[in-house]
Amino acid sequence: MSADQAQPDGEGSTYDEFETRIERIANVANAGGVLRWDQEVVMPEAGTPARAKQLSTLSSISHELLTADETGQLLEELEKSDLDGEQAAAVREIRRRYDRETSVPQELVEEISETTANAHPTWTKAKEEDDFETFAPTLEKLVELKREYANHIDPDADPYAVLFAEYEPYLDLETAERVLERLRDELVPLIDAIQDSDTEIETDAFSGEFDDDDQEALARDVLDSLGYDWSRGRLDTAPHPFSSGTQYDARVTTRFEEDDLLGSITSVIHEFGHANYTLGLPDEHYGTPLGESRDLTVHESQSRLWENHVGRSRPFWEHFLPIARERFDELADVSPEAAYEAANQVYDDNLIRVEADELTYHLHIVIRFEIERELISGDLAVEDVPEVWNDKYEEYLGVRPETDAEGCLQDIHWSHGSFGYFPTYSLGSVLAAQLYAAAEDDIGSFDDQVREGEFDDLNGWLRENIHQHGKRYTTPDLIEDATGEAFTADYFLEYATSKYGELYELDDY
Amino acid sequence: MSADQAQPDGEGSTYDEFETRIERIANVANAGGVLRWDQEVVMPEAGTPARAKQLSTLSSISHELLTADETGQLLEELEKSDLDGEQAAAVREIRRRYDRETSVPQELVEEISETTANAHPTWTKAKEEDDFETFAPTLEKLVELKREYANHIDPDADPYAVLFAEYEPYLDLETAERVLERLRDELVPLIDAIQDSDTEIETDAFSGEFDDDDQEALARDVLDSLGYDWSRGRLDTAPHPFSSGTQYDARVTTRFEEDDLLGSITSVIHEFGHANYTLGLPDEHYGTPLGESRDLTVHESQSRLWENHVGRSRPFWEHFLPIARERFDELADVSPEAAYEAANQVYDDNLIRVEADELTYHLHIVIRFEIERELISGDLAVEDVPEVWNDKYEEYLGVRPETDAEGCLQDIHWSHGSFGYFPTYSLGSVLAAQLYAAAEDDIGSFDDQVREGEFDDLNGWLRENIHQHGKRYTTPDLIEDATGEAFTADYFLEYATSKYGELYELDDY
Repeated sequence: MSADQAQPDGEGSTYDEFETRIERIANVANAGGVLRWDQEVVMPEAGTPARAKQLSTLSSISHELLTADETGQLLEELEKSDLDGEQAAAVREIRRRYDRETSVPQELVEEISETTANAHPTWTKAKEEDDFETFAPTLEKLVELKREYANHIDPDADPYAVLFAEYEPYLDLETAERVLERLRDELVPLIDAIQDSDTEIETDAFSGEFDDDDQEALARDVLDSLGYDWSRGRLDTAPHPFSSGTQYDARVTTRFEEDDLLGSITSVIHEFGHANYTLGLPDEHYGTPLGESRDLTVHESQSRLWENHVGRSRPFWEHFLPIARERFDELADVSPEAAYEAANQVYDDNLIRVEADELTYHLHIVIRFEIERELISGDLAVEDVPEVWNDKYEEYLGVRPETDAEGCLQDIHWSHGSFGYFPTYSLGSVLAAQLYAAAEDDIGSFDDQVREGEFDDLNGWLRENIHQHGKRYTTPDLIEDATGEAFTADYFLEYATSKYGELYELDDY
Repeated sequence: MSADQAQPDGEGSTYDEFETRIERIANVANAGGVLRWDQEVVMPEAGTPARAKQLSTLSSISHELLTADETGQLLEELEKSDLDGEQAAAVREIRRRYDRETSVPQELVEEISETTANAHPTWTKAKEEDDFETFAPTLEKLVELKREYANHIDPDADPYAVLFAEYEPYLDLETAERVLERLRDELVPLIDAIQDSDTEIETDAFSGEFDDDDQEALARDVLDSLGYDWSRGRLDTAPHPFSSGTQYDARVTTRFEEDDLLGSITSVIHEFGHANYTLGLPDEHYGTPLGESRDLTVHESQSRLWENHVGRSRPFWEHFLPIARERFDELADVSPEAAYEAANQVYDDNLIRVEADELTYHLHIVIRFEIERELISGDLAVEDVPEVWNDKYEEYLGVRPETDAEGCLQDIHWSHGSFGYFPTYSLGSVLAAQLYAAAEDDIGSFDDQVREGEFDDLNGWLRENIHQHGKRYTTPDLIEDATGEAFTADYFLEYATSKYGELYELDDY
């Protein structure tokens, strides 16, 4: 069918052909998602070599289908056609992926893939042995390869901006930078004030040893309580908690540590937020961008909203503590206030991102952001990373790592070649606050409902304003439509200062 | 690369290119296997629509890769080249699949796929409501479509032979027919003699109610005892027990019924046999026919060998009963002999194939074989199936179904459009006996080893003579190499008459 005969709509039309093609690509990707879930959750240990080959085949098939000439021709025809808003959005999203994937030579993709596959054991060993030098050459190689990768996609752009756009295509790097700088500038003094405060909050509500099976039962209580749709999901354990799937089948994983009941509860709530977003995507658009979630910032806003704004709130603990007491006699004498305080303790000596509290977390992110920007720009040499890392921890958080294992080797991301990923964690938290404030502005405070374990209004608002749209709107448009304003850190900072000002009885907050 | 430049061997050769291509196809198929396991074992119920689309995409990609012109060209070049035995075998196997898949029009494949998808609920309802008439038009349609399908593959052949070759490509239909006729002719009088015998064997060793969790623990004991490699496998429950996977990851499923402990033990042993075959395929040939199992007859020979020749033997119960007693106090007073007798009871009133014993089972198969041959040839009209079915049950087994639900509607296979599948169940049992006899001929009786729970010699023989060869040899060659003779029912009939003659104290056996 030539361009001038193109029928944008209906059975047998160009759009129809395009949709069939992209649904195929989505099905291959979703099959890969099932294989990865299987690998993390149930696969026997010796299955790895065959699984790696299966996943590599699926990913190369998906790449070939996307970058095929036919895809390019369909995109060109459709871009000249009269499309409705949904169709235009689907075309926009596939065009973006097509342009990126066709601009990077396949050999480079394969070299990155091979380098990261080998980087993983190198990083694991370097971390175990606290030996940055053995990881440094690999990190240097990955920085070079990713710079080259970015250069293929857009030789005129800041390569870090191009890499960031891999995870967050629509909030530009300037926006991210502005938000992260504000977090740094305003959270550092807030955290200082907390550390100087004489107020002692209760932190031992959840100390003790808690049986794994009972923790799992309680994790199911959490999911029941939040309204997780078990007919479309499941809960399992995995070494690193994650959620994955589609609107038909969005699964949650978690892990249990005997001495960290609170951590398992907040982690399950976090993963619920991700899965709940996926479950809110429209069934009828399965397989197209209209049935897929927006990118990492929006996804993380959903997990953080449930984890922090719901799960770390006073009303939540008034609701949930009685449920938890049914499972654990140890909690019989714990008050909701004590649980609330324990869930919101701000640490003054924590070096590890994944163990950070709601406030210091963002300084962990800012440090990684600043370091990886300079790494990619070439302003920072790989060999200098440990010292710069430690200096920044001392400057922003008042603690200095004594080893690289608890310093710059702690996170897996760089060994994956993921540069530009970290900022989305903070951006997601910031967006969570903006969305929660907008929802309360529309509906009124959720406090009473949360206290009753009633989440339908909140979830309904998220479904209507975020989930159901899939990738219909770009991230800035989605945010503006949902909240009436552009993406802003105002609400997060307001929430943080007011919550922690009250909790730690800070005079100036 | 043109044919005269073809390099059959080494990096970058035509064979190398061929291998890369077929490994891709295998990876897509194996990914589909993971998705199907997931669907049967862990997928949330609402996941079906998306899963159906994912599986359909994978199967059409696999079909396209296989039937692409490139595959045909590679096959032609390689067939003109000087190949070693392994290469020639891989080419032979892919050629066979290529010729079959390219000869059937894609529209017909899709029509069959759509018809069977709809046939499943129709059959389920017809069976539930004991209403053959509502299933009849669907069955008629499927018979026509499969006849047409066979005709595309080979217009000169008996269409039933073509369909049978889908499941068993190398043992021709005449061989199958000869074996099944012998089973009918010799088992009918044997079963008659058993029914006329005054010997009462003990049948209630396993009567009682057995907790699911304890049954699962015992199923794990069974697998431990047989030497299942847990680093490459797992045990789960599924509505219909099956095993699936690759040599890196071959999983077993089972189900537990409170009142059927014996059934759960024999079913796990059966599935172990399948998985154990898969685990014996050579790692280095993963992704090619040399690393894939032979077809249904050989696969079923492996499950039946372990289920019947090991699991229904006296020495096995001498070994295993003490283990089972540790799990179930109810078995404290059961003797190995009583367990052996219960495991070998021949029923005189059973109508249901999947509940049949080791002997009557084959008459269930013969009946289906005779009926489906005539259905496909057109000598039997669909509307007459119930009566012919019931007559044959009366003739061969001395029982007449009172309903079609426990008659011709009992099995799912025809709703899948699977005609020619049933015979492989009996052929597998027959081959099991031939292999077990050959192994004992090589090594000596396994009785003492089985009594000690020692299976290494038996499994070693199977690994060496069957598993490690993958699809290297055709089924007749594989059998002849392993046993020194052509496929024969002699050993099965000898085993059956001697075992049951002794058990039921039959004078003439």
